Amino acid sequence: MLPELTDLDHFRTLLNDAPGADTEATSGAEERNGQLTKPPGALGRLEDLAIWYAGWRGTPRPEIRSPQVIVFAGNHGVTAQGVSAFPPEVTVQMVMNFQHGGAAINQLAKLAGARMDVHALELDRPTADFTQAPAMSPDELLAAVQTGWKAVDPQADLLVVGEMGIGNTTPAAALACVLFGGDAGDWTGRGTGVDDAGLVNKTRVVAEGVARHSGDIQDGLDALARLGGREIAAMAGAIAAARVLRIPVILDGFICTAAAACLARSADGALDHCVAGHQSAEGAHSTLLSALGKEPMLSLGLRLGEGSGAALAIQVLKGAIACHSGMATFAEAGVSDG
Amino acid sequence: MLPELTDLDHFRTLLNDAPGADTEATSGAEERNGQLTKPPGALGRLEDLAIWYAGWRGTPRPEIRSPQVIVFAGNHGVTAQGVSAFPPEVTVQMVMNFQHGGAAINQLAKLAGARMDVHALELDRPTADFTQAPAMSPDELLAAVQTGWKAVDPQADLLVVGEMGIGNTTPAAALACVLFGGDAGDWTGRGTGVDDAGLVNKTRVVAEGVARHSGDIQDGLDALARLGGREIAAMAGAIAAARVLRIPVILDGFICTAAAACLARSADGALDHCVAGHQSAEGAHSTLLSALGKEPMLSLGLRLGEGSGAALAIQVLKGAIACHSGMATFAEAGVSDG
Repeated sequence: MLPELTDLDHFRTLLNDAPGADTEATSGAEERNGQLTKPPGALGRLEDLAIWYAGWRGTPRPEIRSPQVIVFAGNHGVTAQGVSAFPPEVTVQMVMNFQHGGAAINQLAKLAGARMDVHALELDRPTADFTQAPAMSPDELLAAVQTGWKAVDPQADLLVVGEMGIGNTTPAAALACVLFGGDAGDWTGRGTGVDDAGLVNKTRVVAEGVARHSGDIQDGLDALARLGGREIAAMAGAIAAARVLRIPVILDGFICTAAAACLARSADGALDHCVAGHQSAEGAHSTLLSALGKEPMLSLGLRLGEGSGAALAIQVLKGAIACHSGMATFAEAGVSDG
Repeated sequence: MLPELTDLDHFRTLLNDAPGADTEATSGAEERNGQLTKPPGALGRLEDLAIWYAGWRGTPRPEIRSPQVIVFAGNHGVTAQGVSAFPPEVTVQMVMNFQHGGAAINQLAKLAGARMDVHALELDRPTADFTQAPAMSPDELLAAVQTGWKAVDPQADLLVVGEMGIGNTTPAAALACVLFGGDAGDWTGRGTGVDDAGLVNKTRVVAEGVARHSGDIQDGLDALARLGGREIAAMAGAIAAARVLRIPVILDGFICTAAAACLARSADGALDHCVAGHQSAEGAHSTLLSALGKEPMLSLGLRLGEGSGAALAIQVLKGAIACHSGMATFAEAGVSDG
């Protein structure tokens, strides 16, 4: 059901040609929602989420049985510029932690009943420092996108993609800046916790990267190659595969949303199957979500990445679907509808 | 472990004398939180929630195994003033719906793995119309509070109280107004959906009730008797019992919070064991939460009552506890801590 990706133009074509949600299932879900034993609109956003999910699953009364969480890890040459509070060795250490079940995302995926997969992308071969050269060649980008593309289980009924990559708020900020404009300072935050001087340096690095590459960037995939990273490209590949497979996606924080933004700038409607799981404490995330027209489900000050905020949001989406598909109608329950 | 309530003064005394959270468990949880494999603070509010929960459960590494959801239902004489978009018969119809598992709260309690109990309080005997007389006599108030007090399972490790009572945003608004001041219009909203003329009428009713009774109200329990309702009093009784039993509580929407506010105005620290599950779309809820110093976990536009927003928030609290108690420490995982 999911074609093999041959090259980046093929990827663009598949993304542009992907079918939308099932309008009949959407209508059926809207009709059902209006008959449930509650005042109209009283479940607020849960109602919209259930109808959205029903449309993408192609049934007016869906269930969530097989969520998948995929964590991609990559290393970044730009860490040579001193952009992170943690050393790059932490990326591989955290991958071990994911594999042993000790990270936050392990606990949240388990709680959500989700299958969890971890893909480490050539951690011993960081991307190039984008202040000096493109982060990846077109072939390197394709390989990373393919990793994400193939990682999605076609049987999954919900997807969360997360990341681990010391330094990766820096490429995420550069991507957001080149895709949506503004100054580097508008998009650069403290990540895992750089100090004031670190923030000044990080902003300089983002500005240099954008200045060096923006003239060569025509769309989101160009941006991914020049300013992104392997785990970011893999996330984009997975989100795109879910779009083709009509698997709904809950977006995580700033880095995940930056990956998604590259798709939005490569094909119209590329993120119609996505909702924003949460608003990160990383300052520019809310700006980025607004630019994409996405309203976060949660706002709890998380800034961990790994897919943690989105995995937590699975719990809320499950609540929406449980109400939508499990509640009695006014007729079934013998309740007066006002 | 929970003493029998003999009278309302006894209730006040028990509430004032109830012990606080376990400071040793709180410290232990704070220490553990600082060792988990994440940047400091990166799980945002989840960290605070886990530490709060640990303190009330008396262990630095708690679990949530036995949540309880209790829905109380009552009818209100003030519906004679035309304050609701739905007829009072809907209260008993919805109680049947709760008993048959068809309401939103049934789905959300089940999803959270919670025991759910329903207590209908003399539905065929509505409270008095508070524009004409006190809603309840002291004995009627005591009986309703006792129902809530006894409804709490001492073995529960988390409590959500919800309500059903056509017209009950009107007494909730009157309670908030008499306890915190301001104009009736500041506290009166559309409830399940009254129109503009209905809102004007409802505001008048709230103002009349407050004007009639405020001179006779010394504390939250006086307010509950004169302007409250049986299900609101039962919620207060249950929240108070949980305080004595050190069972953490997630508050639901406007009506639940108004019930809780009556306790806060009867004893200092009466709500230290409570967090706000969500911010309701009922306009005055955010004002009421601010007055109580409570920040909502969710803000998804719900305005259904039944305990629905709080039950949904159980899912988020479970995520907080899963991370706190399940994650590896830096030492366990061999991860550099920056």
